[in-house]
Amino acid sequence: MPIAVTDPDDPCIEAYRAVRERDLVGRQHRFIAEGEVVLRLLLKQSRFRVESLLLAENRLESVADALNQLSPDVPIYTANRAVMDTVVGFPIHRGILAVAQRAPLPPVGDMLSRLPETALVVGLIGLANHDNVGGIFRNAAAFGAAAVLLDQETCDPLYRKAIRVSVGAALVVPFTRVASADAMVQALQDASFDVVSLSPSGREILSHVQPSRRTALLLGAEGPGLPADLLARTRTVSIPMSGGFDSLNVATTSGIALHHLSTAGR
Amino acid sequence: MPIAVTDPDDPCIEAYRAVRERDLVGRQHRFIAEGEVVLRLLLKQSRFRVESLLLAENRLESVADALNQLSPDVPIYTANRAVMDTVVGFPIHRGILAVAQRAPLPPVGDMLSRLPETALVVGLIGLANHDNVGGIFRNAAAFGAAAVLLDQETCDPLYRKAIRVSVGAALVVPFTRVASADAMVQALQDASFDVVSLSPSGREILSHVQPSRRTALLLGAEGPGLPADLLARTRTVSIPMSGGFDSLNVATTSGIALHHLSTAGR
Repeated sequence: MPIAVTDPDDPCIEAYRAVRERDLVGRQHRFIAEGEVVLRLLLKQSRFRVESLLLAENRLESVADALNQLSPDVPIYTANRAVMDTVVGFPIHRGILAVAQRAPLPPVGDMLSRLPETALVVGLIGLANHDNVGGIFRNAAAFGAAAVLLDQETCDPLYRKAIRVSVGAALVVPFTRVASADAMVQALQDASFDVVSLSPSGREILSHVQPSRRTALLLGAEGPGLPADLLARTRTVSIPMSGGFDSLNVATTSGIALHHLSTAGR
Repeated sequence: MPIAVTDPDDPCIEAYRAVRERDLVGRQHRFIAEGEVVLRLLLKQSRFRVESLLLAENRLESVADALNQLSPDVPIYTANRAVMDTVVGFPIHRGILAVAQRAPLPPVGDMLSRLPETALVVGLIGLANHDNVGGIFRNAAAFGAAAVLLDQETCDPLYRKAIRVSVGAALVVPFTRVASADAMVQALQDASFDVVSLSPSGREILSHVQPSRRTALLLGAEGPGLPADLLARTRTVSIPMSGGFDSLNVATTSGIALHHLSTAGR
């Protein structure tokens, strides 16, 4: 049964207070998910435990079928728009929020060793933009990537906006962090992955690449790209572009490369 | 010589007043470009006449070399941040703005007849999101598309944010509007273009498509997609995706398709 909240200061909904300010600080053990598409994935497909929901009264009916999948001990709070906006701190047009617990990040070696013999993995180095990381997760899900590896400088896929841009894929595609870019390459090579680094200076052209059964695609930030010592240790691939124009957005690049690597030779 | 403006009410810089409010209304004969990368393309590669510039004092030096290309009768206004922010109506972090005149949109038949025998063209149907249109122009430039055609429902590529997301490509890739999606297909077929419509229900798979010398790629909005009668009259192509996940972003889709169409068979 939904619990109607009428007082914006009700301590029950403390977790939903000042969402943006807390986004900036970062949440250690929890994350916030918003919107209907993301909520449905969170309840149906993801590995995260939901702690509570906060719904605008007029959104309750549209997600009622999905709420049946929720354990009865998870509180569903409802509020009118004025109370919801006051608690959250800005107009929350989608009217749907959830708080869930982060899952422990597995050691990269364990994660890779459990993957099937044919697998595509994405590795992100220094990607500090939430839109790009969200977009890459969306593409990773669309092309069936088995996992995403993040270095320490890559931003949090469970940041609210990254989840939204990923259309919920950040909740679905398994990911973990590694200590450094070097450690990422080492772990991938130890697990028999052919490591493909995308770079404007790449020696092979993407459209000619025949992927191996286990292939990892490494992507760096748009300005600096991937470090030279990493390129020296991996298979470097470029996407030829028309003369003189600025390079592609990195999320678009991930889509182009994942499309090729998941379809080439099939 | 730059003209220092100290009074936010100075009528010289009227064109820069309340930028966001005027963005929403739309500008009939002019557009606003912002940021250094976009300014450099506007001055160097684009077909648009610049009317004036407004620069934060501390940005003047960083673009001094590009300003040499400017006709001496184009005024360059400078202001400190406080004056600039007051005029514009919000903090303009990039500190670089230009006002330029729109160019007349050529009739689609004229535009297509002037293209070379080998050409890739993009057609957009009902794309109302400025980020997506900007991203598609960026990809069109990266893969050497010769032109972009827009139906009446597709938003303005010269909207400030669309230009920014395109990294200036909206100023460089030629475009025009057509009366309807039907008229677009007709004009393309009259000009001997093989019209490829991307759709989840497409009969061919993108990675197997061998493009013709003159190929046009049609893209529709993420929800509704392209209309059924248009699909019936064109070559329909799909991008296979992993089971059950939401479709790709349309800008990413354009990058994947343009990459394939510009490299297949080469």
